[in-house]
Amino acid sequence: MQRLESLIGAIAPPRRGDPERVRAHLGQLTKPPGSLGRLEELALRLAIVYGDPPRKLQHRVIILCAGDHGVTQHGVSAYPSSVTEQMCRNFASGGAAVNAIARAVGAEVLPVDVGVDGDLGGLAGIEHRKVRRGTRDLSAGPALTMDEVVQAIVLGADLVAQRARTTDVIGLGEMGIGNSTSAAAVTAALTGRRATEVTGTGTGVDGEALESKRRVVGAAVERLPPRPAAIDVLAEVGGLEIAALAGVVLGAARAERAVVTDGFIATAGALCAVRLCPAAQGYIFPSHCSPEPGHRVLLEALDLEPLFDLAMRLGEGTGAALAFPFLEAAAAVLREMATFADAGISGPTAPVRA
Amino acid sequence: MQRLESLIGAIAPPRRGDPERVRAHLGQLTKPPGSLGRLEELALRLAIVYGDPPRKLQHRVIILCAGDHGVTQHGVSAYPSSVTEQMCRNFASGGAAVNAIARAVGAEVLPVDVGVDGDLGGLAGIEHRKVRRGTRDLSAGPALTMDEVVQAIVLGADLVAQRARTTDVIGLGEMGIGNSTSAAAVTAALTGRRATEVTGTGTGVDGEALESKRRVVGAAVERLPPRPAAIDVLAEVGGLEIAALAGVVLGAARAERAVVTDGFIATAGALCAVRLCPAAQGYIFPSHCSPEPGHRVLLEALDLEPLFDLAMRLGEGTGAALAFPFLEAAAAVLREMATFADAGISGPTAPVRA
Repeated sequence: MQRLESLIGAIAPPRRGDPERVRAHLGQLTKPPGSLGRLEELALRLAIVYGDPPRKLQHRVIILCAGDHGVTQHGVSAYPSSVTEQMCRNFASGGAAVNAIARAVGAEVLPVDVGVDGDLGGLAGIEHRKVRRGTRDLSAGPALTMDEVVQAIVLGADLVAQRARTTDVIGLGEMGIGNSTSAAAVTAALTGRRATEVTGTGTGVDGEALESKRRVVGAAVERLPPRPAAIDVLAEVGGLEIAALAGVVLGAARAERAVVTDGFIATAGALCAVRLCPAAQGYIFPSHCSPEPGHRVLLEALDLEPLFDLAMRLGEGTGAALAFPFLEAAAAVLREMATFADAGISGPTAPVRA
Repeated sequence: MQRLESLIGAIAPPRRGDPERVRAHLGQLTKPPGSLGRLEELALRLAIVYGDPPRKLQHRVIILCAGDHGVTQHGVSAYPSSVTEQMCRNFASGGAAVNAIARAVGAEVLPVDVGVDGDLGGLAGIEHRKVRRGTRDLSAGPALTMDEVVQAIVLGADLVAQRARTTDVIGLGEMGIGNSTSAAAVTAALTGRRATEVTGTGTGVDGEALESKRRVVGAAVERLPPRPAAIDVLAEVGGLEIAALAGVVLGAARAERAVVTDGFIATAGALCAVRLCPAAQGYIFPSHCSPEPGHRVLLEALDLEPLFDLAMRLGEGTGAALAFPFLEAAAAVLREMATFADAGISGPTAPVRA
């Protein structure tokens, strides 16, 4: 617990760039005022994190945390738990969706075994940080002990610290059969929304299986007090990969790096981080919104507007990877565009609506 | 006119990939069925254009056509016409938004003087293809002769042909003070919508100037017959850069390359191309939707759903550039992902909702 407190204590809100000066800079660039729309907001937030102009966001890494869930014995997922381990092997050999998409945008994928219920041996291409083989069944009692939660958060932050010098921007990713059940419970507990509002189909359950998933989520959340602390939520209904991703967010904030959300489960980890340490919010950048009903609830709680919505619902960091080029484009606008004065270009003949 | 007919005659709908086989391939990849959402549609369309798997979309070029508009004498823009030439110099020296954003996504920018009302001399970094110095005032009569329109279309197609061997994917871009007035007139004429529905603020006109812009658009469109031919629309109310971009789309279709729309004006060029040659539609890929009210009307007429909406309204190819990573990610999914059989991964325990 002391290691968590010292991690949180080392985080301050971003303030390398002065918002007023960045806005003035944006207004001098050779384009009609405000014409880059939300890319300008993105540029502003990046300049606050990195200074103005922001560095080139060249070294990009998706930290993909994997873990299993005891609750899968209740049929909450369409796939067996063994798929978590099998997919880790697929990440290591580069054949998963996130590997293909990350290569397409020049990002590295770092798969981390935080809690896979299987033996990955010393498989190359995986960071081995197993806290335990899967969580306990969250429908029957606490999924994790407080020690396990803290261990997962701290290891997530350490993953960032170890590569902060060579990493410009981080994306969240996850894999874990059953983890949309855990994420739904985390979302309901942290936002006060009902289980039915935040529990979706995940990888594809429907009909009676979906009803059962909702009942499991609702009953588990009932065990928590109103307005529970994030750390208690993670212990009662969380997952090791969700706790580790909360740690990745805190580690990114400590290292003053932007960190990009992914799908529903990764975004649940991000909200845990902000509830543990509100100063971390300024380092979190959105990617997409998925069809999972809880995802928009989480983004609203984080005060983040998604950049795109392509109805993606895979996780793994696929959405985070696709957001990297938007961030680098926004940074490049501040870093590389000429001003009207530099370029000798006429301003408007009359005041222009921004 | 014969050159235009032979261009159109050389275009066939894309059919390198068989849609049913591509869908089957997508279904075998290591992810829940349909979980990549609209990225899978994008993958399917790319495989139809390039074959399955699609090539790496590595060599990316934004063809940025610039031209001036006689109608600017009526105060339809917040900026003076001289800005078109000044911005061309900015494109050539790499200081504009599109230069910064294109570099961020690994794309080249090719600025083309199709009709700038100024003397760019032999400025390096610009393709010099001036048809005439700006259009005639479209509020007073035809903006262009039929010969000028055909010349602009054919030169746009030739720009693609000259670099097709070394170009994997093309983006549309434009610059031209006053060209949102011309694009609004083109949109109204081709879709039958009223001027008030498709005329927006452009670079920032408001109030009485916006009302006047709408009147100019409405009156100009009135001179055309109902359901006019695209070639007549371009001559009556078009712009040289809009005609050239229609040619770029036709050139891309002839060369069997995907071509990405940009903002309102470039998308007007794309609709002209499809009205001239419906077979070109399969080569056109969307990027964003802007706040210009006519942009969504055009995308609907093209049967394209935008990939993102960041309230960008700059043009230049900035939106097209941001779409390139989505296209390459979709192509990479088909090219690089393992199948369930390859990776030895268990399928679902029960049928999964796609």
